[in-house]
Amino acid sequence: MTFLFNSDAARAKVFAAQFAKDLPEVPFASDPALVDPESVRYLMTWTPPADLARYTNLEILFSIGAGVDQLDASKLPAHVKLVRMVEGGIIRMMREYVTLGVLALHRRLPEYLAQQARAEWKPQPVKQAHERRVGVLGLGHLGKAVLEQLRPFGFPLSGWSRSAHEIDGVTCHHGADQLDGFLANTDILICLLPLTPETRGLLNGELFAKLPQGAALIHAGRGPQLDQSALIAALDSGHLSGAVLDVTDPEPLPSDHPLWRHAGIIITPHIASVTQPETAAKAAIENIRRHQNGLEPIGLIDRSRGY
Amino acid sequence: MTFLFNSDAARAKVFAAQFAKDLPEVPFASDPALVDPESVRYLMTWTPPADLARYTNLEILFSIGAGVDQLDASKLPAHVKLVRMVEGGIIRMMREYVTLGVLALHRRLPEYLAQQARAEWKPQPVKQAHERRVGVLGLGHLGKAVLEQLRPFGFPLSGWSRSAHEIDGVTCHHGADQLDGFLANTDILICLLPLTPETRGLLNGELFAKLPQGAALIHAGRGPQLDQSALIAALDSGHLSGAVLDVTDPEPLPSDHPLWRHAGIIITPHIASVTQPETAAKAAIENIRRHQNGLEPIGLIDRSRGY
Repeated sequence: MTFLFNSDAARAKVFAAQFAKDLPEVPFASDPALVDPESVRYLMTWTPPADLARYTNLEILFSIGAGVDQLDASKLPAHVKLVRMVEGGIIRMMREYVTLGVLALHRRLPEYLAQQARAEWKPQPVKQAHERRVGVLGLGHLGKAVLEQLRPFGFPLSGWSRSAHEIDGVTCHHGADQLDGFLANTDILICLLPLTPETRGLLNGELFAKLPQGAALIHAGRGPQLDQSALIAALDSGHLSGAVLDVTDPEPLPSDHPLWRHAGIIITPHIASVTQPETAAKAAIENIRRHQNGLEPIGLIDRSRGY
Repeated sequence: MTFLFNSDAARAKVFAAQFAKDLPEVPFASDPALVDPESVRYLMTWTPPADLARYTNLEILFSIGAGVDQLDASKLPAHVKLVRMVEGGIIRMMREYVTLGVLALHRRLPEYLAQQARAEWKPQPVKQAHERRVGVLGLGHLGKAVLEQLRPFGFPLSGWSRSAHEIDGVTCHHGADQLDGFLANTDILICLLPLTPETRGLLNGELFAKLPQGAALIHAGRGPQLDQSALIAALDSGHLSGAVLDVTDPEPLPSDHPLWRHAGIIITPHIASVTQPETAAKAAIENIRRHQNGLEPIGLIDRSRGY
């Protein structure tokens, strides 16, 4: 019952060492050519190999990233569990990135960067944290961790997700009916949603119009959720005041794309959160143990909803 | 025993309302022309008025800002207490600003901004928080508050100050003897020191050379503490990797100054922390009550050391 790790050699080395130490009873392989396909019970990959069908005894397909939108679940036999990456490294990095984005927008960094480019020394009016409402779209592991990190700053916090949640100190909204009310009270909107048919194109002109005047966006979900032209239009009209984007469509963003040169936008190249091999290996080992003990793996995808 | 508020009208209005509500027994004035100078026991100002000597019964001179380096204490009679501003608004804003700076440098924002200017999509290697040592120069109210805010991110934290301190979860160093050891173990250096003869020019080439290769600077102290040419040289040589500057010398920074255009530097126009009138008025009222009850005002300056 082999664990096949289909990714780069540097991460494979870290995984191999962790498996040898903590789960020696499960043979570890990182070269598909050297493994008996029928022995593979667990496969970790970013995109599925073309010859996925040869792993006839596969029990779990692990995504090496936080999302599974790059994996076409329809090609997976129904009995194979699809599991996304939930590990401390990804979560910690997302906490950092979103806090950086919130503070940058709260303290008007895009405007100060534009002023710096003009060598202009000009303090701008400030808002205090209690006047800046921060709202998170998506209340899974990442959304909850981000809200917890933001709490000590004193921002009024809210969240929206498809299903109901309760989080201490956070006004939680859920379902399509409560989306507009959530948006109307959000000055900094953070998108951490998974990419599904429902969330594709969700961040569009209609949604931006429901945000208060001067609102700002942090997008650390998936590129195709954002209508990039609508974002530029909302910034140009002054309705939105700034954006921090870690994801675009396509990626890499072509060098002639207008997003790159918009003064209100800070772009990072999909680096908000990257699977860290040390913690990811431990998370995978824990999930295999859970599976072997009849428990549900952490990060198990409900294939009917796609996340 | 009048409180004379020597600052802008907008803040004076907030102060007047708070004094009327919480300290009605102390008459409030904001126009020196309309006040009997002999009645003034408390004066709040940024720079001292030229006719300071006419306030013959002055007991406390309050700075409206966190520092007192703009006030020439040598002109003050020895019995007048000099008090700097310690109030929740200043502290909260500094926590935000420094956290923003630390996360920006930790997550390599200056490099990503430079890449964005070139429309270049290129993820850079990441360090985890536990590999990034953050050190604060200055362990007063602001330094301690900043360290508390940084704690949940998992950075190894240290601090240095003139006199010994103990702070939970922070490696504290003090005195000239321990400065080099502190610097050698600091990847992100934060300056929150007051401006005194000892700290003028402290952030110079000699100090930068004692930081590890690739270290970065956040300067939210006072402009004259930094040798700006030495900073540029340390960035150009690659010894330092980036800087976030909220203070410069002079301020405003002249538009032809090379600091503005250095790719490794983010400049903000002295906005890290601004006295907030609501919380500042309450802090001043509390200090007058303490003084009237024979207690030391919070933020009292030791004139022998200058802070």
